[in-house]
Amino acid sequence: MIKIGVVGATGYAGEELIKILLRHPGVKITDVSRYSADKEESISDIFPAFKGRIDLPCKKIDAERISKNADLVFLALPHKASMDVAPEFLKAGKMVVDLSADYRLSAEDYKTWYGVDHRDKGNIPVAVYGMPELYSASIKNAKLLSNPGCYPTSIILGIAPVLRSKAIDPAHIIADSKSGASGAGRKADVALSFCEVNENLKAYKVNEHQHKGEINKILSEISGVSVDAVFTPHLIPMNRGILSTIYLRLKEKMDTAAVLGIYNEFYKGKPFVRIFKEGVLPQIRGVVNTNYCDIGLKVTGSTLVVISCIDNLLKGAAGQAVQNMNIMCAFNETDGLL
Amino acid sequence: MIKIGVVGATGYAGEELIKILLRHPGVKITDVSRYSADKEESISDIFPAFKGRIDLPCKKIDAERISKNADLVFLALPHKASMDVAPEFLKAGKMVVDLSADYRLSAEDYKTWYGVDHRDKGNIPVAVYGMPELYSASIKNAKLLSNPGCYPTSIILGIAPVLRSKAIDPAHIIADSKSGASGAGRKADVALSFCEVNENLKAYKVNEHQHKGEINKILSEISGVSVDAVFTPHLIPMNRGILSTIYLRLKEKMDTAAVLGIYNEFYKGKPFVRIFKEGVLPQIRGVVNTNYCDIGLKVTGSTLVVISCIDNLLKGAAGQAVQNMNIMCAFNETDGLL
Amino acid sequence: MIKIGVVGATGYAGEELIKILLRHPGVKITDVSRYSADKEESISDIFPAFKGRIDLPCKKIDAERISKNADLVFLALPHKASMDVAPEFLKAGKMVVDLSADYRLSAEDYKTWYGVDHRDKGNIPVAVYGMPELYSASIKNAKLLSNPGCYPTSIILGIAPVLRSKAIDPAHIIADSKSGASGAGRKADVALSFCEVNENLKAYKVNEHQHKGEINKILSEISGVSVDAVFTPHLIPMNRGILSTIYLRLKEKMDTAAVLGIYNEFYKGKPFVRIFKEGVLPQIRGVVNTNYCDIGLKVTGSTLVVISCIDNLLKGAAGQAVQNMNIMCAFNETDGLL
Amino acid sequence: MIKIGVVGATGYAGEELIKILLRHPGVKITDVSRYSADKEESISDIFPAFKGRIDLPCKKIDAERISKNADLVFLALPHKASMDVAPEFLKAGKMVVDLSADYRLSAEDYKTWYGVDHRDKGNIPVAVYGMPELYSASIKNAKLLSNPGCYPTSIILGIAPVLRSKAIDPAHIIADSKSGASGAGRKADVALSFCEVNENLKAYKVNEHQHKGEINKILSEISGVSVDAVFTPHLIPMNRGILSTIYLRLKEKMDTAAVLGIYNEFYKGKPFVRIFKEGVLPQIRGVVNTNYCDIGLKVTGSTLVVISCIDNLLKGAAGQAVQNMNIMCAFNETDGLL
Repeated sequence: MIKIGVVGATGYAGEELIKILLRHPGVKITDVSRYSADKEESISDIFPAFKGRIDLPCKKIDAERISKNADLVFLALPHKASMDVAPEFLKAGKMVVDLSADYRLSAEDYKTWYGVDHRDKGNIPVAVYGMPELYSASIKNAKLLSNPGCYPTSIILGIAPVLRSKAIDPAHIIADSKSGASGAGRKADVALSFCEVNENLKAYKVNEHQHKGEINKILSEISGVSVDAVFTPHLIPMNRGILSTIYLRLKEKMDTAAVLGIYNEFYKGKPFVRIFKEGVLPQIRGVVNTNYCDIGLKVTGSTLVVISCIDNLLKGAAGQAVQNMNIMCAFNETDGLL
Repeated sequence: MIKIGVVGATGYAGEELIKILLRHPGVKITDVSRYSADKEESISDIFPAFKGRIDLPCKKIDAERISKNADLVFLALPHKASMDVAPEFLKAGKMVVDLSADYRLSAEDYKTWYGVDHRDKGNIPVAVYGMPELYSASIKNAKLLSNPGCYPTSIILGIAPVLRSKAIDPAHIIADSKSGASGAGRKADVALSFCEVNENLKAYKVNEHQHKGEINKILSEISGVSVDAVFTPHLIPMNRGILSTIYLRLKEKMDTAAVLGIYNEFYKGKPFVRIFKEGVLPQIRGVVNTNYCDIGLKVTGSTLVVISCIDNLLKGAAGQAVQNMNIMCAFNETDGLL
Repeated sequence: MIKIGVVGATGYAGEELIKILLRHPGVKITDVSRYSADKEESISDIFPAFKGRIDLPCKKIDAERISKNADLVFLALPHKASMDVAPEFLKAGKMVVDLSADYRLSAEDYKTWYGVDHRDKGNIPVAVYGMPELYSASIKNAKLLSNPGCYPTSIILGIAPVLRSKAIDPAHIIADSKSGASGAGRKADVALSFCEVNENLKAYKVNEHQHKGEINKILSEISGVSVDAVFTPHLIPMNRGILSTIYLRLKEKMDTAAVLGIYNEFYKGKPFVRIFKEGVLPQIRGVVNTNYCDIGLKVTGSTLVVISCIDNLLKGAAGQAVQNMNIMCAFNETDGLL
Repeated sequence: MIKIGVVGATGYAGEELIKILLRHPGVKITDVSRYSADKEESISDIFPAFKGRIDLPCKKIDAERISKNADLVFLALPHKASMDVAPEFLKAGKMVVDLSADYRLSAEDYKTWYGVDHRDKGNIPVAVYGMPELYSASIKNAKLLSNPGCYPTSIILGIAPVLRSKAIDPAHIIADSKSGASGAGRKADVALSFCEVNENLKAYKVNEHQHKGEINKILSEISGVSVDAVFTPHLIPMNRGILSTIYLRLKEKMDTAAVLGIYNEFYKGKPFVRIFKEGVLPQIRGVVNTNYCDIGLKVTGSTLVVISCIDNLLKGAAGQAVQNMNIMCAFNETDGLL
């Protein structure tokens, strides 16, 4: 039984982590904590759905206390907070799965996209990027696992097969992504209030969203050439889910069936990617509350349109984090996730 | 042409006030202001829908500046802020329509329900409660108009006819009210964020909501005896609208048609109350974006169930405020409101 | 391993049944069927979330075929359809859990509330009403289990403790219930279309909803006197969940703590009812996707206000059905449900 | 005072038409009708918001009756129904504003995109395409006005300036459009029911939506070369609004300011197109319940990203129809629309 600390348990990703870990056969949550704790509250005071199932006190983060009771910690903290606590857990010999962006980029790129100097540069090279469909071999031995971002997960999984097979032109990639509101986190902000999000729809940070660095880095690794994708995120009036509509340019004439063949081959044996048959496209409804990435596609002229759907809090955050833990700890990859 | 200042223009009620006043044939908005103004923004920067229609700068509140350009001011400020600025406008001889709760109660009751000592006790007796269907005579001569609360409007209009006619027992009144999220105002608060309100539903402040004082005060005035209604508000995942389901006890056997007769008689000639015929009940959809209060009802045994619907931002706030202004300024009661 | 047939698998309750049964350790789904099947589709064509997890063909109902492969059948059919197929399964010696209303009332009451003569009167006396918190002893031996309605579950569980303890006046019960749209089933109907339900709210069938017969029958059994509760259902713009606000009259002065004591005692050891401590009320968010009924309450004068929340598709349908199956088959009561 | 018949008054576009016409200073609605009328209902029975404002009976369509009382008819009928009734009104000398697709395409293209032979080929050449920002001169003299589709309006207005100025490559146009559910019309359909649309998101008819013919036809007219845009529509869980994210390729290096200059020049004096300044993008919230098309844009490398927002029922249907009527009847272009 692996003992788990959930650090940053009061956000939406933290809530989902706890839900999954509660039904996981091989782990036990021993500590839940949060950034600041004015008053003593149990996790079930904060999320009443946990009442009677897990009533641990949600204490202020204290790496020493947590390390005593945990073999592995999930860091579900905001960007820029993880890099201040991860080193302590690593020093204590704990496995760390970080859900923030803090270990996804080089120090230079981190500065570019997140606007601050990285405060734990030494551990960046140690971190393993946790997209199991691409990097399972290195995940097995990871001590510091950097869990991918939500938008990057939906986009990279949607492009990887034809990018690696060189069927598409890497110079012309457009990703138009639509996300539910939980992607912005659990916080007080007029722009996230019900009346501003409901019955509304907007694009934001057009081609300058901080996830762009991560998307381009991984797509470049896959293709072997420098990729600069156009990426437009949109905020949709729903709680969860990301649907990315990806426009790619085929280098040679292919039909939908041939392209689907590439995807099916690429994801053979991967339990959490489902490729839809010709004529059927995935919807958010099919992935919400699951760890699946559902992919459908259509060729129209020289354009390949790919639809890639995930639950941003699961395959885009907590679910993928547990999938990575499963690989790191030699559990079944699907434990707790079906 | 009456010149208007909108004080507190950046909330939802302020936004609706501006929308209505822009199409009102007899007024001109000369000033829009807000409580604090860090930076110079126009009202159309804050509410893009106004772009090209009204682009006035939204300045910090300054009663002297505003008084120079306005004959009448609407105060769309939070509770406890209005009583600090209203006296200045009154002293300058301006008509004031206050949308907050600050002049609805006696100083004692205000302390009870809002938790602070009133800071403008002298003007409380001057204030006229602006429910035109009940108090139009005194509204005509009001200088300080106290605009009713949203819940009280839906509940009082739903009960007044049978309470005044003494058809019901004033000792057994239950109002179960359901409100859209804009009723809580435009503010940064985790509890009001999209993911907390959407796909959720809750009762709050059961029988201790601050509107209870106002409801009981007016119902007592209508009935001539002290009324203590049970009042439960609920938060509904929709932007606007209040539906109150009111449970009343008939003193003598009556059928639905007879009770409808009382309502139709009571509201004869009132342009903004619509009584539904037997067998049909109003819905929120029929009143959103209108100034109507729609009422339907059904007798079942000795219980009278009344359904009363309003748009909380219009008949429950900005619309009723303009209706009151129309009466105060001798416009047609419906100007700007149809 | 108990073999299960899901009859009526294409509605929302059917979908939830399959989800639960897939993670239940003691059962195996051997057949999924529906009322009419024009074309051969698999259940994962209808509900893409099941793709790769259960891809059984969804055939037309055929009691003979199903009986060959199943030990127990769930009937998730519309009212009036169950009574035509249940007898065949019973004759074949199968256990039947019926989610419809067909076996909840006497033949006379059924005619009153559902408007048709019952076509399987012989089995009505055999049916056991499946509310485990009240009737677990008889559920253990049930062959035909009649699963409660969604509104009745939330209301009866919210009233039972004080009704049985005789703390309240059974002559004055008011239940104001609010339900998400899935309660109306999965069907083509303009009134259920997104644009009609969203940003809307309405009461319907005031005190004449078909669940009233069931509510009154069980409340009368509990209290030993004839109960005629006032019941108003409302349609809320959310997918799932029922919150019932129940107004009761205390016969003698009691405070909130004393009443909570009665509830805690009554539900001691019941795994799916959670009583909230004084000052905290349950919300829909805490029960969605769970089998819990969350109850909070407040005494105000002689009025007791109870808030009772369930997920209408789980504790109000599929979850409670599996809870009943667990008792009938001697599984743990919580298997598959946590 | 122009007398108006609204044919097809029971859909969402019909409802909006009536709302606008009720506040238009120069017209009077004399007849409202619908395709089939089983029972005599007034329009305010169907749309309760109209109660007390317009209570005309909603009769079955009868061109002879309607022509007696109307100078101009709006046809808010489904595709394929308009072409059966338009000829009768034209023969009777009435002006016709058709909101369907029936007169937007050549007979050949109509067959391609709508799957049936056109049944009124003779009037196709007479029809004027009613996009006032492009074709106001011919609209002035139109007898048969073909009102644009909702998606085409948002897309064509978003591209026209740079397409006409030849700043972009007409061979690489991608339009990713997101629409609220009212775009699908008011009808009974499981796929449009609340529980299927809410908390969901999907792409549909990828690059084969029937509006593609109209988009390509007009874009080709504007550019002078044959355009074949890639068009992906998506269904968003909100009632109204279309946001199109358009990806264009600049032929020569230009910055955002320069491109905005082209748009501002192109739409100078057009009352219903608002161009946003650099750094600000339009949202659905700013156009809902208005007749505006709001446009913002950003240059990133050689890609121009344009965001174009409309209310699909107003600028995308009823609002633009009235704007066209205003031009045809020599009213102010904005009458009834501000």
